[in-house]
Amino acid sequence: MIEETHVSEGDIVTAAVLVIGDEILSGRTHDRNIGAIAEHLTAIGIVLREVRVVGDVRDDIVAAVNALRVRYTYVFTTGGIGPTHDDITADSIGAAFGVPVDIDPRAVAVMAPQYAARGISLTPARLRMARMPEGAELVANDVSAAPGFRIGNVIVMAGVPDIMKSMLAAATQRLRTGPKVNAVSIVVHRAEGDLADLFARHQTAYPDVAMGSYPSFADGVYRTELVLRSADPERLEEARAALVRLLSERELI
Amino acid sequence: MIEETHVSEGDIVTAAVLVIGDEILSGRTHDRNIGAIAEHLTAIGIVLREVRVVGDVRDDIVAAVNALRVRYTYVFTTGGIGPTHDDITADSIGAAFGVPVDIDPRAVAVMAPQYAARGISLTPARLRMARMPEGAELVANDVSAAPGFRIGNVIVMAGVPDIMKSMLAAATQRLRTGPKVNAVSIVVHRAEGDLADLFARHQTAYPDVAMGSYPSFADGVYRTELVLRSADPERLEEARAALVRLLSERELI
Repeated sequence: MIEETHVSEGDIVTAAVLVIGDEILSGRTHDRNIGAIAEHLTAIGIVLREVRVVGDVRDDIVAAVNALRVRYTYVFTTGGIGPTHDDITADSIGAAFGVPVDIDPRAVAVMAPQYAARGISLTPARLRMARMPEGAELVANDVSAAPGFRIGNVIVMAGVPDIMKSMLAAATQRLRTGPKVNAVSIVVHRAEGDLADLFARHQTAYPDVAMGSYPSFADGVYRTELVLRSADPERLEEARAALVRLLSERELI
Repeated sequence: MIEETHVSEGDIVTAAVLVIGDEILSGRTHDRNIGAIAEHLTAIGIVLREVRVVGDVRDDIVAAVNALRVRYTYVFTTGGIGPTHDDITADSIGAAFGVPVDIDPRAVAVMAPQYAARGISLTPARLRMARMPEGAELVANDVSAAPGFRIGNVIVMAGVPDIMKSMLAAATQRLRTGPKVNAVSIVVHRAEGDLADLFARHQTAYPDVAMGSYPSFADGVYRTELVLRSADPERLEEARAALVRLLSERELI
């Protein structure tokens, strides 16, 4: 049985990302998908709450998927759906949902003509990429034919960044989204410590506006970016203008 | 009470990374620490098993730290130890260990002369960076003075990549390490699907050598990197040579 598990907090739509792959944990490959998915979800009004990275280990994948899918509206996974023996994501997702996994004729129907057109033979290994858990829906892949899939609230995508992006765009069409969070930022060429007290008081004055401070230091120059976030654009502008006033008064900008 | 929790599997030393920060989850900042820590740990013989990213939310940090520190030899955290109000990592780690958090005179003693030398005043905000959980040891920071810390098996580092690297190097001196895993790779200019069957049989023939396949596709050219890993260099060379032979026989390389 597939249970649809949607946890909502009012209008807020939440998500987790699960990156699957030994190569990320060994440091051989540096992940580029977390940032891309995070940006995309923020832009469409889905709040990313948690990310996990696990290796190509069935029990670890099952445990992570089952922990995350009951907690968030959506779970997006990347990696482990290729043709090689270390690609075990589809089987692990099937195990997490307690459903069988087999070659899906709909996936073969998508893949076969595209491979034929490119002169690529549909080997047993390539047919592994058509394996889907029972009850899954295909997620289109405009880059390399083999589709991802969605089962319940879990969207299963490839690890290769270009293919992941194609699948994310395809999956997005059927996602519920929430209010978009607007963000404004003010850059101050001072160390965080010079304005932290002022900034903390400003957060207290506007508890409904999320405020973060992001320092960097390069070529001997301190730089601090103050970011304000709110779903209410008027309130956000009010908090921004007041912060600029405070920083000016103190001659920090 | 601080419990030291070291889970070992024979000689294997394991680790998890916990990245803390709303800015990573919103996509505003793309993490660069996971890859750097993963490479470093692999190089010194520590097996990274899991990564999590959580926001600047105390309960989420506490839950993640407590889940990870009982499961792995070490937990490395990044982010949330700066001077601003959204830096709540030290307090959250204290809560996870059930110990009080206060300004640590040893940290002040490290910070005060360095700030004085640079003409930076030790404001209340900057003193926040000297807050440490009871029982913590300082982790040196050669970049910006304010130290990280270690409590039990949890190493708490900054989020700014250069500062993180300085702290990671300092913490490394006191880590237990295990056997280094050697890796060799063979690059094949073919799609994964062309060699997946052969590669799967090779994995079956060498079950003690971990084998992964990493595809990429750029400028119309397929590229697949086959990576073999083992702590035993002779066995690794045997598996590598046999794989090269198989690929040559099939005219794949």
